Amino acid sequence: MNKQTNFEGLEVGYDIPALPGMAEADIQTPCLVLDMDALERNIRKMGDYAKAHGMRHRVHGKMHKSVDVALLQERLGGSVGVCCQKVSEAEVFARGGIRDILVSNQVRDAAKIDRLARLPKLGANVIVCVDDLANIADLSAAAVKHGTTLGVFVEIDCGAGRCGVKTAAEVVAIAKAANAAPGLSFTGIQAYQGAMQHMDLYADRKAKLDTAIAQVSEAVEALKAVGLAPELVSGGGTGSYYFESASGVYNELQCGSYAFMDADYGRILGPNGERIDRGEWDNALFILTSVMSHVKADKAICDAGLKAQSVDSGLPVIFGRTDVKYIKCSDEHGVIEDPAGVLKVGDKLKLIPGHCDPTCNVHDWYVGVRGGKVEVVWPVSARGKAY
Amino acid sequence: MNKQTNFEGLEVGYDIPALPGMAEADIQTPCLVLDMDALERNIRKMGDYAKAHGMRHRVHGKMHKSVDVALLQERLGGSVGVCCQKVSEAEVFARGGIRDILVSNQVRDAAKIDRLARLPKLGANVIVCVDDLANIADLSAAAVKHGTTLGVFVEIDCGAGRCGVKTAAEVVAIAKAANAAPGLSFTGIQAYQGAMQHMDLYADRKAKLDTAIAQVSEAVEALKAVGLAPELVSGGGTGSYYFESASGVYNELQCGSYAFMDADYGRILGPNGERIDRGEWDNALFILTSVMSHVKADKAICDAGLKAQSVDSGLPVIFGRTDVKYIKCSDEHGVIEDPAGVLKVGDKLKLIPGHCDPTCNVHDWYVGVRGGKVEVVWPVSARGKAY
Repeated sequence: MNKQTNFEGLEVGYDIPALPGMAEADIQTPCLVLDMDALERNIRKMGDYAKAHGMRHRVHGKMHKSVDVALLQERLGGSVGVCCQKVSEAEVFARGGIRDILVSNQVRDAAKIDRLARLPKLGANVIVCVDDLANIADLSAAAVKHGTTLGVFVEIDCGAGRCGVKTAAEVVAIAKAANAAPGLSFTGIQAYQGAMQHMDLYADRKAKLDTAIAQVSEAVEALKAVGLAPELVSGGGTGSYYFESASGVYNELQCGSYAFMDADYGRILGPNGERIDRGEWDNALFILTSVMSHVKADKAICDAGLKAQSVDSGLPVIFGRTDVKYIKCSDEHGVIEDPAGVLKVGDKLKLIPGHCDPTCNVHDWYVGVRGGKVEVVWPVSARGKAY
Repeated sequence: MNKQTNFEGLEVGYDIPALPGMAEADIQTPCLVLDMDALERNIRKMGDYAKAHGMRHRVHGKMHKSVDVALLQERLGGSVGVCCQKVSEAEVFARGGIRDILVSNQVRDAAKIDRLARLPKLGANVIVCVDDLANIADLSAAAVKHGTTLGVFVEIDCGAGRCGVKTAAEVVAIAKAANAAPGLSFTGIQAYQGAMQHMDLYADRKAKLDTAIAQVSEAVEALKAVGLAPELVSGGGTGSYYFESASGVYNELQCGSYAFMDADYGRILGPNGERIDRGEWDNALFILTSVMSHVKADKAICDAGLKAQSVDSGLPVIFGRTDVKYIKCSDEHGVIEDPAGVLKVGDKLKLIPGHCDPTCNVHDWYVGVRGGKVEVVWPVSARGKAY
């Protein structure tokens, strides 16, 4: 039983699940737990990779939404800044001291454009993606109004079928307009393919990336031909960064999930057919959960349901256990198959979330543990910042 | 473009998506919007029903997690208080002035039991569910320690296969123990069946409830036989409340989703085969979203993805439109099929979420609108309170 209070005098369990210095066993569940050793290993490893391959690494902050994790990625992994998806996230990262921020998404609403154009005043280099000529005048007017400069990445749709233009001619037209517009600076190309990241087979992912690289290379050549060689060509995720790094055309990575990992990424396979969570990346993020009912002999009920995770990419996997299995999820509960009845009420389990990004977004805190102790309690700084 | 600031001097879009008095058109998306007229109609209607049928209505606060909505349900719908699922939610409702709070779930962790036992000091009547004799001593010790009394509902598993005991003998054993334990008071029975609420056919739901009612009746008779007639027999949701009300054994309802509605509940059918969102309950909750890219002629991309909703019960439905359809959801984006190209960048759409409970849990604010104006901006008071 824990009666510690935080700096505001709040007791643990009341607005906060843990405090630094506390024993890991006293953490209130369900909550997000970070294995600090694993997190630091992942961050250093990707940092070393990027450095060895001459790539900038702009970490994807939308995954963790945490200023503290982003700063750790700068310090240990040499990352150059973040990308994020929403203006409200960019505001949080800029306030938190991140100095190079790409909103890797379109910003079209007038109020949001106004907020975006004010952000460089906080000291950050701010870049935004554009896929429509009609966006240029609005962005330019807002930057001029605030006396700032916004970088522009032209977004290429290299297979996601979502935002982005398809042809080199469209890329050139937008780049030219951005280059000519006061308050804007054409800075590069955004070419990220989300869905392919999760294809199980290395060869399938490589085939998709080969197509994307050809498309990006064509756009880069067309830009060079009009004197607008892009300073940055940016993209790549945890399932593809080696392809972009070897492409000769990309010079900036945008990996996110490598730092935490999740069950869905864990299932994809490397070049030799091995799962990427068996040696490439360590699971650093867990949902800590407790068994809170075990009336049925072969089923344990735990306290982590839909409000502690997103199940869009499948159910969570119980870390380090093959004797029990998370088989069903409702609003507040998880049902755990326990055929041998090995679990008892109060037992804690570490769940590897199916999909880290939307899972982190439902929590307020990361509880960082090392050696059985709580080392840090970090806010999910941009949680809920979707606008 | 909107430059209003809130009471803390924050600009709209920066930690808050709207302010009271603002035009509906100026709300920053994505965010949750409440149609205040529809919400009030739903609340009054269920209140009138409960009153006409002599039922207490303890609204399920875990759905909306909002002190403001719970107080509106008391004021307009005559509800007696709330149920919720977690101690941290109960803390928020008690602080907010709700005076009768059932934690309709097991509380087993020592620190959580301690927090629960302190709650009556805030002036609330606090009840908790028990499905295991081993829980009684811990609850009793904590209540004695704090000089408080906790009500106990014995939870019956009437088909959900999750928490709860199955037999009348088990119910009697726990009720006796609670009755004898200092600091505890045996108050009633919890018998709610979640999964059956979502069965499409009225007859299927009725068959499930008939079984549950027989099981509950048997437990009530067994309790009466030992002089422990339960004061309250509680259960019932938006898909079943008429069965519990007609049962002659239940005297308290626990409906939640009726107030907001969602796409999953909308699909279930009433006694005459009509969808319950065509006359029984109005859609009061929406995710307001904007089109932010439309480079492909037949596909609009909107700004509400997995971080603005839970898709565990299916994708959202676009309110009032048959010409466009939400067909795909990723972290930050929704893909909208727009075969005739009727949408343009900046257009706003109202999405009916697939499942209201976990969708509300990702948002910080409810923006209540009436007559084209923002009337209220309410915090999702217990958002993220899962521990």
